Amino acid sequence: MADDFEAMWGALAPVGRSAASGGYFRQPWAGAERELRAWFVEACEQRGLRVQGDGLGNLVGWWGEEHATRPDERLLTGSHLDSVLDGGAYDGPLGVVSALAAIDRMRERGVVPARPVGVSVFVEEEGSRFGLACLGSRLLTGATTWERARELRDRDGVALPDALEAAGLPGPQAGDPDLLAGVTTFVELHVEQGRALVDLGRAIGVASGIWPHGRYRFELSGTADHAGTTRMEDRADPMLTYATTALAADEEARRAGARATFGRVEVVPNGTNAVPSRVTAWLDARCESEGALAELVAGLERRARQRAEVDGTEVRVVAESVSGLVSFDPDLARRVAADHTGGDWPVLPTQAGHDAGILSGAGIPTVMLFVRNPTGVSHSPAEHAELPDCLAGVDALADTLERLCT
Amino acid sequence: MADDFEAMWGALAPVGRSAASGGYFRQPWAGAERELRAWFVEACEQRGLRVQGDGLGNLVGWWGEEHATRPDERLLTGSHLDSVLDGGAYDGPLGVVSALAAIDRMRERGVVPARPVGVSVFVEEEGSRFGLACLGSRLLTGATTWERARELRDRDGVALPDALEAAGLPGPQAGDPDLLAGVTTFVELHVEQGRALVDLGRAIGVASGIWPHGRYRFELSGTADHAGTTRMEDRADPMLTYATTALAADEEARRAGARATFGRVEVVPNGTNAVPSRVTAWLDARCESEGALAELVAGLERRARQRAEVDGTEVRVVAESVSGLVSFDPDLARRVAADHTGGDWPVLPTQAGHDAGILSGAGIPTVMLFVRNPTGVSHSPAEHAELPDCLAGVDALADTLERLCT
Repeated sequence: MADDFEAMWGALAPVGRSAASGGYFRQPWAGAERELRAWFVEACEQRGLRVQGDGLGNLVGWWGEEHATRPDERLLTGSHLDSVLDGGAYDGPLGVVSALAAIDRMRERGVVPARPVGVSVFVEEEGSRFGLACLGSRLLTGATTWERARELRDRDGVALPDALEAAGLPGPQAGDPDLLAGVTTFVELHVEQGRALVDLGRAIGVASGIWPHGRYRFELSGTADHAGTTRMEDRADPMLTYATTALAADEEARRAGARATFGRVEVVPNGTNAVPSRVTAWLDARCESEGALAELVAGLERRARQRAEVDGTEVRVVAESVSGLVSFDPDLARRVAADHTGGDWPVLPTQAGHDAGILSGAGIPTVMLFVRNPTGVSHSPAEHAELPDCLAGVDALADTLERLCT
Repeated sequence: MADDFEAMWGALAPVGRSAASGGYFRQPWAGAERELRAWFVEACEQRGLRVQGDGLGNLVGWWGEEHATRPDERLLTGSHLDSVLDGGAYDGPLGVVSALAAIDRMRERGVVPARPVGVSVFVEEEGSRFGLACLGSRLLTGATTWERARELRDRDGVALPDALEAAGLPGPQAGDPDLLAGVTTFVELHVEQGRALVDLGRAIGVASGIWPHGRYRFELSGTADHAGTTRMEDRADPMLTYATTALAADEEARRAGARATFGRVEVVPNGTNAVPSRVTAWLDARCESEGALAELVAGLERRARQRAEVDGTEVRVVAESVSGLVSFDPDLARRVAADHTGGDWPVLPTQAGHDAGILSGAGIPTVMLFVRNPTGVSHSPAEHAELPDCLAGVDALADTLERLCT
């Protein structure tokens, strides 16, 4: 049984991997990610799953439709295949591969599902290309409209419709199947992205919900100048405003038990001997409550403005995306966490956004399973899960799906 | 007479100008800069100047060789045509256009030079593409060897020999003319890049020398991580080390009456939801003395390492280029500054590197003329000089050259 998971995992390992860093570059609608989606379609077809796709590249492979006694209470499980820039192997693909392996396992056990079970792949979950996380599931649920999404551009200025066209996809079409039609439960298995399970000494956990989080673009502008001849006193250097704000983000997040990160920066003109005219920096902020998130971001904007007065620079803050608190269906989480061999799985919150949060927000009862990550490191080439834990994840997912579909 | 300067200036104005910012993108061996060098060759040919060029793209147009009584005491004047990214119109081209206009003026006055007078254009003065300022004059004087230069790569990873080939240039060749053979004086006219002349109420000044300055690459490395799930306490975020160092640079330079700028930053992976694994930042530092420069840079490295201990990050500092103090020939500066109508020109130091510094370092007696800049702003679309001051610059250069060549 282990062979199915390991064979699939081995097949994906080289796709989009950087020889230099060992990390993955699986940006949506480009080389490696297209290869992964083609692999997924083939894996579904080999299993006799009926594949549905939409004009964005979201995919579902359906099992058990022919004998289902409750065909309108569809059970969906899956995750995504894209990665952040230079990311890990597990974030996303672990949920997709485990879902296929779980179906293999149920079949071998002779399970006949009363509800059709689908394995889903949602596109651009990371937002690493178009800046809006969970873009595929957002468009599918209507959380984001196509009118807004079609204006998105990647770093190279390519508009989303053009990226889709280059990938041979038409974008959302009137004739697209509704991949979520009749779906009444969603289960997402994911590698844990922190160390809670390590601290608890457990391989598997169940998510209670997702912290509110958002991406905020800080546009800091000043005056380009010669780095040699312009006296320090005569400058309006937005780099100093940025540096102060980045340090404030760390301080304030520590104080609040929250997360605040400036991981992306763009400088204009970005020349060694020129004082910059503009620094654009993206804040990723996450807190336990929506009130705390708003307070954290407002505090950082205030700190930026205070420093800007000293620097003679200007500050503009744009919220690019803000996601409210997600509370997964508590009854479903309790049921999934209990009643199986090996004792209850622990139930814990996460700070990471997931397609599960979008589907939950659209009113679909949703649950997440986490697989232990020994270092807690994620979004990095060092992201890891031990094979026995991955196989325990497949077991846990198969058990969960079996209980939910029979 | 004004017409020659204005006509030439008007012809150059649109070349490489960004409609968005109004700034100039004249990077070496690419579109706009190649157009400017072609324009220069044509301008020389129209004036009957004999054009010499080398395999790098350095150019000189010679006037008065046929009647020169001191043919081995050549007088060179000129500057450069490349710009920083999104730079101004004046830094470089003002010296080249003024030199051609000064020759026109001397001819109209019937000057017959005893020494051949050359107008020079040195390539990649700004170092905006290959990171090493004054690359053309450095290679010409041997201050930098071709063995080192041929390894340089631009931001897109293009090696210098390939960039030259793409521009139709072979690189240094055994058969190249030595553009500096017999040159015993160099005069560079340049827009002032500070406000000293404004403060003095004078249109023209003479440079006494160039502050020591250098470019230092700070490589700060930590651990890529998920920006949401990784607790602040568990991170090794090089962005924080960088931010602290950038603020320290400003503080230390103010304290020392020096200049220290972080104007160029590259972040890996530069994703909104990833703690960076690496921040590379370039320090541009300039001080009155070589000792003060070394002390400033050592102090900033110390500040970076102190913070790195807190952040759990690593620091590596690489000096990419360091230029010692340049003292221009004091007798020549005195002679040029005195003895002309309108009273002595003020003599003042500059913080900006120039080809004049390289030629001076190679033992060629050198002098610089500055033209007033009303805002002091340079390396920016706002860089400016008023037309009457530019014409006063042409007059001053023509007077200076006439006195030096007769």
